[in-house]
Amino acid sequence: MPRDGHDIKYLFEPRSVAVIGASHNAQKIGYKILQNIVEGGYEGRILPVNPKGGEILGLPVYTSLAEAGGEVDLVITTVPAKFATAAVRDAADLGAKFNLVITSGFSEVGNIAEERELTSYALERGMRIIGPNIFGMFSASAKLDANFGPGGISAGSVAIITQSGALGLAMIGKTAVENMGISAMVSVGNKADIEEADLLEYLMHHDLTKVILMYVEGVGDGDRLVDVLEEATRLKPVVVIKSGRSKRGAVAAASHTGSLAGSDDVFDAVMRQCGVLRAESIQEAFNLCKFLSTSSMPAGENVVIVTNGGGIGVLATDACEKYNVKLYDDNETLKSIFDPVTPDFGSTKNPVDLTGGATSPDFTGALNAALEHEEIDAVISLYCETAVFDADNLTEMIEQTAESYRAAGKPVIYSVFGGSTAEAALATLTKKGVPVFGDVYETVACVGGLYRHWRNASAQPAGIDEAEIDEAAIARIVDAARADGRSFLLAQEGKDVMEAAGIKMPETRVAKNMDEAVRFAEEMGYPLVMKIVSRDILHKSDMGGVALDLENREEVIDAYQAIMSNCRARVPHARIQGIQVSEMAPSGVELIVGARKDPAFGPTIMFGMGGIYVEVLKDVTFRAVPFSRAEAIEMMKEIRAYPLLLGVRGEERKDIESVLDTIIRLGTVIQRCDGISDIEVNPLMAYEQGQGAKAVDIRVLLSENSGGGTNA
Amino acid sequence: MPRDGHDIKYLFEPRSVAVIGASHNAQKIGYKILQNIVEGGYEGRILPVNPKGGEILGLPVYTSLAEAGGEVDLVITTVPAKFATAAVRDAADLGAKFNLVITSGFSEVGNIAEERELTSYALERGMRIIGPNIFGMFSASAKLDANFGPGGISAGSVAIITQSGALGLAMIGKTAVENMGISAMVSVGNKADIEEADLLEYLMHHDLTKVILMYVEGVGDGDRLVDVLEEATRLKPVVVIKSGRSKRGAVAAASHTGSLAGSDDVFDAVMRQCGVLRAESIQEAFNLCKFLSTSSMPAGENVVIVTNGGGIGVLATDACEKYNVKLYDDNETLKSIFDPVTPDFGSTKNPVDLTGGATSPDFTGALNAALEHEEIDAVISLYCETAVFDADNLTEMIEQTAESYRAAGKPVIYSVFGGSTAEAALATLTKKGVPVFGDVYETVACVGGLYRHWRNASAQPAGIDEAEIDEAAIARIVDAARADGRSFLLAQEGKDVMEAAGIKMPETRVAKNMDEAVRFAEEMGYPLVMKIVSRDILHKSDMGGVALDLENREEVIDAYQAIMSNCRARVPHARIQGIQVSEMAPSGVELIVGARKDPAFGPTIMFGMGGIYVEVLKDVTFRAVPFSRAEAIEMMKEIRAYPLLLGVRGEERKDIESVLDTIIRLGTVIQRCDGISDIEVNPLMAYEQGQGAKAVDIRVLLSENSGGGTNA
Repeated sequence: MPRDGHDIKYLFEPRSVAVIGASHNAQKIGYKILQNIVEGGYEGRILPVNPKGGEILGLPVYTSLAEAGGEVDLVITTVPAKFATAAVRDAADLGAKFNLVITSGFSEVGNIAEERELTSYALERGMRIIGPNIFGMFSASAKLDANFGPGGISAGSVAIITQSGALGLAMIGKTAVENMGISAMVSVGNKADIEEADLLEYLMHHDLTKVILMYVEGVGDGDRLVDVLEEATRLKPVVVIKSGRSKRGAVAAASHTGSLAGSDDVFDAVMRQCGVLRAESIQEAFNLCKFLSTSSMPAGENVVIVTNGGGIGVLATDACEKYNVKLYDDNETLKSIFDPVTPDFGSTKNPVDLTGGATSPDFTGALNAALEHEEIDAVISLYCETAVFDADNLTEMIEQTAESYRAAGKPVIYSVFGGSTAEAALATLTKKGVPVFGDVYETVACVGGLYRHWRNASAQPAGIDEAEIDEAAIARIVDAARADGRSFLLAQEGKDVMEAAGIKMPETRVAKNMDEAVRFAEEMGYPLVMKIVSRDILHKSDMGGVALDLENREEVIDAYQAIMSNCRARVPHARIQGIQVSEMAPSGVELIVGARKDPAFGPTIMFGMGGIYVEVLKDVTFRAVPFSRAEAIEMMKEIRAYPLLLGVRGEERKDIESVLDTIIRLGTVIQRCDGISDIEVNPLMAYEQGQGAKAVDIRVLLSENSGGGTNA
Repeated sequence: MPRDGHDIKYLFEPRSVAVIGASHNAQKIGYKILQNIVEGGYEGRILPVNPKGGEILGLPVYTSLAEAGGEVDLVITTVPAKFATAAVRDAADLGAKFNLVITSGFSEVGNIAEERELTSYALERGMRIIGPNIFGMFSASAKLDANFGPGGISAGSVAIITQSGALGLAMIGKTAVENMGISAMVSVGNKADIEEADLLEYLMHHDLTKVILMYVEGVGDGDRLVDVLEEATRLKPVVVIKSGRSKRGAVAAASHTGSLAGSDDVFDAVMRQCGVLRAESIQEAFNLCKFLSTSSMPAGENVVIVTNGGGIGVLATDACEKYNVKLYDDNETLKSIFDPVTPDFGSTKNPVDLTGGATSPDFTGALNAALEHEEIDAVISLYCETAVFDADNLTEMIEQTAESYRAAGKPVIYSVFGGSTAEAALATLTKKGVPVFGDVYETVACVGGLYRHWRNASAQPAGIDEAEIDEAAIARIVDAARADGRSFLLAQEGKDVMEAAGIKMPETRVAKNMDEAVRFAEEMGYPLVMKIVSRDILHKSDMGGVALDLENREEVIDAYQAIMSNCRARVPHARIQGIQVSEMAPSGVELIVGARKDPAFGPTIMFGMGGIYVEVLKDVTFRAVPFSRAEAIEMMKEIRAYPLLLGVRGEERKDIESVLDTIIRLGTVIQRCDGISDIEVNPLMAYEQGQGAKAVDIRVLLSENSGGGTNA
């Protein structure tokens, strides 16, 4: 489908909005949306359309969109499914730019063809479709509230994109309760045309939007989503809730929206790659959005905890380890900063303990000292209710210090734990947009999110590393295999692909007769492996078609004869192309590298430890292609068994450069070679530094519905 | 310290309470506690003691405890540290049963000797000490509120034991806000005498207490705690928050309370073994307590989700996988139950989706259908705010259905997500003690806790499995090594201990000369390993003192000569006891089994995969000894690499019985043999079913300050 068309800005800032199916009945969606638009204070042209005409909410109703006349930026289609297709066609014919198709009853209930037809009709005429099966949208920039749920959305700085309508509507209420203002909200529903990536392109540059929250059930054009997310997360935090993490949840999601959830492991790794903050629960996501939409960005990673409760300080310290928040450790400096403001029996070590005897001036003193010292980059302030503390001043103390930090551009967050005065402070401060939470873990999780975002956004853009490969050669191999009616490559073809990709394999040659076998063996050196080459013999070992660990000429001769007689006896009609003579790769660290076209994200790379590690421990991770060498290193480090590559038990470091090279090369192949859907190198043997890495065994599958060998 | 003394009941249900240091000054702790006792409605004798005499809060003040006269069950010492010791002695001399030593300034600030002296004086006279350094206690059974923090604690069914005073005081306020009634609360502070186990012995049989919550920073007599917890968790849920999980948190905890945190991995595994529900955050712990104190116990594991939101249903499904909640799967039965009560376009599959069009009667219908059907054991009901739902009836619907479930003894829990009406319902229902939460993950986490508890409490008690070992022989070996001035065993001694413990090792004999070496080799068969035996040669390989993989008589002769000449040349003065000739163990699955006296929990067993698994992946787990064979199996299953024992890649199942046997035997040794502090078997080679397991290499350390070899 075409990605071009009108500037997405006209969706969020339309100069005119038409409501097709505007209703006189206050119970109907076509009334409710119009009401929200009017009451929300939209200042552009509002065009209610209903064949009955008349007047609704003081506005004249047009009997048709054509009658309304003029250029229409945004059409909202609320009529039932049986009328919706015609209505959408009308709007497209009249040159409308965007169409929110509220109407349900399309692909989510199996009416896929209708939805596809409607969408392509619109796209051919340049009109973009949002939905169908959505509750509408909100845009603070246009004061446009075009949703059929609760009105009175508070403008703010969090943008929400939601695939679930029901959850999205309930979120509107929840944002009010949590005092989380919204800059924009779009229900994307079936995503027949517009999807997250389109909206992100606007929202990442949208001044009012400080944080973007997405609720995702299934990914459409994941390849493009990755590109856009990588750009967006450098500009502002993007928080994603993706349901269907579990196997059963994925099944439930599929039956619920018809969307293909894909593997959660891949999704999770790719989101990390994109710098996205993935939240598990809605509450966690809301906490992140509330904090990140108000927080300054830190200048560095020196975080200090200030507390009046030792126990709660220890809990926060634990939480900092969990959420990878780095606690500042220079005890000399800490002493110089906090000694003047810490009561007797307190501690100036981090967590700085003001003791249970602390009062609001003690907190203010310590927080100001931390604010003024440039070595400290962020502060977590934990209040634990005590009898000594002047509770009447709690709210003011927090509000004032938070304001000083805000003015100075230094992040601060508060946790308040205790009884009714603590709860009251929490409620009051939340209403004022001060970053304060109840539970210590919740609080620290927000700081962890801040740093995850900050590390990603402040890192040098890593760029993309690709390898030089012989695409034409690979295309020829793929085409030949296809011509042969196969959807997989034979061993020799796989080896040829590896050669074209510049990936080393153990030397292998195919002997047509015993003399050749002996000559190859003598030329290659020992030990060797011999294997029957025949597409008619699948289980080569079981048929006696394999001989390992051949040490000399005599063993090669014996093995040749044994393999031939075994295979001829057990698979009499097999066409035998020869016997493969291969260098026996010395053992190294066994890795696995997979390259495949993921149904959601397109070309992806899997990396992990091979053998039982991948089978039993599932110790693997993923990345969307293309990526940089630096990202490939990050990928390696995610593997639990990574220390094996660095060398354990006094072993030398392995040739990590060669492994990286293999990863980049396989990434380039899977990205550029359309004809290939799947390559698995298992094992890739990594040897000691300088000794390289070799792809000992590979398997290549071809794409099902693709003609050419490569994109090139 | 003596564990006997007065029945712990008199701590929780004292007939008389004396406050030493009762104060006329309302700002003082000695006033505040008295005030809480009086206002809390305590009905026993209240004896304020202050040398000044007079009257406080309408009560006559005694100038000394002696003057007050009569038997005193509970004394509360509030005077400063410099007077506290004398006050505690007085109380002990007068035969008081329990003494809450509120006073701080003891071991927590380094005054360890004072604390020890005070405690032993009391214990020798039969008086038990709680604290010092505590805020007091509350006991609903006696209507006794003897804490110096906020009064007005609501009686309820959650008992709290807290090591942190500040956090405990703040928790009192928090319980009020969360509407969580308290059955008993004890601040244990420095735990000079009374610790968690003493209190659990009362609370586990305390009718008012439905759930026990403990906040722990360090474990004292962990061995006893394990015994008591195992008993308690069969009777009611025990929730534990243990701070200092992280390395840095453990350091902070140690500097905060002076308690030794110990390894969190061990703590975590042992709590699991005890059937304890460990909570990470205070909020998580409170949620568990609120739910478990009101919930019925399920009859089985068939859980059904009923929802009006598809998206939220998927999130809950994900959460069920995370928290190991089993969703009922029989679609036929589900259809028969829910078809009559599910609207069109809804789904009777689990999660049962009533659709966004559902109203309160739809929810009531579905919840009643689930209640009536005996196949369904528990229900998670998720409400997602919609415009269609009759919000006015939300609270009533939940309250009524919850009451029906309560009456029928079937667990139900609710999640309510949305705006202000949802929040209002949440607040109202929480006040009424109905199990309702906001976030879906929070909600499902509670159900997960219910089932973790239920599985533990409803399982057959597994008992204890111990092995027959020759303790006397082990004691002799240990004593001989000690007499030799060593704190470790030599290889042959270690082997003798293994033999006495009935654990198989590869056959090994020590040859005094070459003839013996050859004879042993011929008798044992090949391949063999030879190794120098000399306590003067530590790095045997480096000195040329080891020969591997000897295949025949000639190689044995060569190796003998080579080892002798290498060692004599490189360590000229070494006393050589002989050369060890050992069977070379065939390779199997490499395991590691450790048995040690843990500083917190006493005898413990570590189990994991050996080699790089333990070094790189830290794939190990722990148990406190003794335990049953069934528990040992659970332990094995916790290892990520467990499938290797079941056999992967077409390999046979390994001899798990022999591994279990080794675990039980090592557990028996570490438990019974006082003289041994540490045994590490690494690797324990596990062979195929029926082929056994062999301890290939072992290392034994002796206890530092222990005389005899065994307890026997």
